[in-house]
Amino acid sequence: MSALTPAADRFHSELTELSTLVDGDRPGWTRRALSETDIAGRHYARSLMDSAGLSTRIDGAGNVIGVLPGRLGGREIMLGSHTDTVDGGGRYDGITGVLGAIEVVRLLRENDIRLDHDLVVVVFFNEEPNDFGFFCVGSRAMTGRVDRSMLAATDIHGRTLASALPDSGIDPEAFLRARYDFSKVAAFLELHIEQGPELERMDRQIGVVETITGINHFRALFTGRQDHAGTTPMDVRADAGCAAAGTVLAVEAIAESGTNTRGTSGQIAFTPEAVNVVTARAVVEGEFRGPDGSWLQEAERRLTEAAAQQAAARGVHVEMEWTTDDAPVPLHQPITSAIAEVADDLGFSRATMFSGAGHDAGIIAAKTQVGMVFVPSHDGRSHCPEEFTELTDILPGISVLLETVLRLDSSLT
Amino acid sequence: MSALTPAADRFHSELTELSTLVDGDRPGWTRRALSETDIAGRHYARSLMDSAGLSTRIDGAGNVIGVLPGRLGGREIMLGSHTDTVDGGGRYDGITGVLGAIEVVRLLRENDIRLDHDLVVVVFFNEEPNDFGFFCVGSRAMTGRVDRSMLAATDIHGRTLASALPDSGIDPEAFLRARYDFSKVAAFLELHIEQGPELERMDRQIGVVETITGINHFRALFTGRQDHAGTTPMDVRADAGCAAAGTVLAVEAIAESGTNTRGTSGQIAFTPEAVNVVTARAVVEGEFRGPDGSWLQEAERRLTEAAAQQAAARGVHVEMEWTTDDAPVPLHQPITSAIAEVADDLGFSRATMFSGAGHDAGIIAAKTQVGMVFVPSHDGRSHCPEEFTELTDILPGISVLLETVLRLDSSLT
Repeated sequence: MSALTPAADRFHSELTELSTLVDGDRPGWTRRALSETDIAGRHYARSLMDSAGLSTRIDGAGNVIGVLPGRLGGREIMLGSHTDTVDGGGRYDGITGVLGAIEVVRLLRENDIRLDHDLVVVVFFNEEPNDFGFFCVGSRAMTGRVDRSMLAATDIHGRTLASALPDSGIDPEAFLRARYDFSKVAAFLELHIEQGPELERMDRQIGVVETITGINHFRALFTGRQDHAGTTPMDVRADAGCAAAGTVLAVEAIAESGTNTRGTSGQIAFTPEAVNVVTARAVVEGEFRGPDGSWLQEAERRLTEAAAQQAAARGVHVEMEWTTDDAPVPLHQPITSAIAEVADDLGFSRATMFSGAGHDAGIIAAKTQVGMVFVPSHDGRSHCPEEFTELTDILPGISVLLETVLRLDSSLT
Repeated sequence: MSALTPAADRFHSELTELSTLVDGDRPGWTRRALSETDIAGRHYARSLMDSAGLSTRIDGAGNVIGVLPGRLGGREIMLGSHTDTVDGGGRYDGITGVLGAIEVVRLLRENDIRLDHDLVVVVFFNEEPNDFGFFCVGSRAMTGRVDRSMLAATDIHGRTLASALPDSGIDPEAFLRARYDFSKVAAFLELHIEQGPELERMDRQIGVVETITGINHFRALFTGRQDHAGTTPMDVRADAGCAAAGTVLAVEAIAESGTNTRGTSGQIAFTPEAVNVVTARAVVEGEFRGPDGSWLQEAERRLTEAAAQQAAARGVHVEMEWTTDDAPVPLHQPITSAIAEVADDLGFSRATMFSGAGHDAGIIAAKTQVGMVFVPSHDGRSHCPEEFTELTDILPGISVLLETVLRLDSSLT
């Protein structure tokens, strides 16, 4: 049994320093991908990785990759998470796993433990949704799930991702070629805050993730007719706004019908957006999530039908686009079992979990065996300034991460 | 019977010139109040008024006022409309009445007809809703319905109306004092496009307005809780966006329950507006209109209740604000009768109408006898670039306006 103890003060001061690298013009703790502050965040993480003894580089997709060479060479165990945030986000999402992985490296070195495997720590570029409709951008690039159509995607100002990447020091051609050789990666582990209320509700310290949610993201564009709000009788209107509102409620109703399923309409816009004009054009963007791929397909079918009905009832035209369609990802039993055993052996209470959030781990899972370790989120809050996890709740997660690395290092080839 | 014929070519070329003074950065035919193009529009109208022989001035509230002196002096007949538009609006709303009134002046002078009354033509400042939540601003100032609280109102950038007015050459103190002496105004007439489909549906040339709609304008602010869209179970959310969407549908359902009643939610905004974040804050702005004041009160009560239910069902807080509360305005029977008789005598088909649009005439009606003359709107379209009325449909309106002026000049003291 390992008795290596994470250094609470060190972790805490680094978390404070990294989490306060924020865009002062935005609410909360905002460090969005493709911003100056995100560059600063990854730069800070890299400096900690260098100090911890990793040899670091940045790949063509902006991922910071650090290596602690092992005894045998050629085989790797990979840890990682991200440092970007959503707009108005919190201080723990992503950072916890990055600093936790760096702490694991330091504990190994400080205790003169040399692994057989190379230990690789990755700070993934752009995990949260960006303005171009993509998320887990860095991990997708590492696994070869990027192409030129992605570079051509535009934000609401019509700017392409290809033209935005160079501001973050990323060459679009290098981005397309930034594949990682996962044939040498024996396992990938990610420590993360839960971002939901389950561990706290159950009073457990460690969540062992069994499945990462599937996400079906939609964009519904309703085209009605712009008319005077006073003179146009209700029965001759084609009010795109009402069709959009009906669709928001359909998303909610469909999601409430499943188990561990979520549905959210996070964005809506009416045009021309004048109080005395009937809305000509309305856009709703939202998503479904859930652990069951067949339910997601069914939700997609039901919402497409509901939006068509909302539109048809008002003489409105609808275009429904499903922009991402990521199936649920089951994580790998040998790894999840190892995490569970470690938690038990270290005396931490644990639960198996469904992750309602997407994670880079879900992308990497297509290429190697993956496990995720969750620690509790206070009040289940996340993607908001109030996001909080007690330091004493994070340290068990780091201990489990370290001990799982040690056991996998012995058991995996 | 007068046989004075409006000059079609002259009217058409002026309408073309005035309607093309637009903000090139905005869609449609946009000349919003408090903009450079609105100043240019009123300047152009004033130059036509000067050429027509009116002595013009601009009052403290930006209203252009032109006077054609009558034989007796001291008593007035007033005509007027506006030259500003909504964002993305059309070419006929307002302009038709302004150019029609100027044409009436020219026809009188060209035919050496001198009225007993002074004929006053007014181009009202800022008839359409501005960014500060007000409309019919110039006519409200003329009738003394403005105060300092109006000056302190802010747009979404926090700018006050008081600080915006000087850019249009309006001193805020002069604005508050810009009352007109309506004791000398015997009658007010406004020619306007219908902006709805009724005249065309009924195949009538002239609409005689009996009632101008009441307008109850609301702003509903929903405050929920910002949470992660993937990790937060449906049953613990406080999704402000869903409560707002439910309110949009309630507006529609309530308006559909009345006769000649309208309900529109023209504006909606979700915050933080991210596809993977549960909406913390949502605002809906909209309005009810109708000819019956008691129905409007009932609609206000029902929507306030519906918004509260939508909020309560989701653990969301709602603040419902009713920002304008203009009762329906019945126009004056002696004037509406005169208009109807003139239409009949000139051989134009006519219908009595409810105006679903608000008009400066509705504000002036508190101070003197008022009548409105409508001409058809093609396909009922208005507040959109497609807004259109055939020139041959406008000219009868000008003829009715002129002949009504002549008759009122004889019959009124």
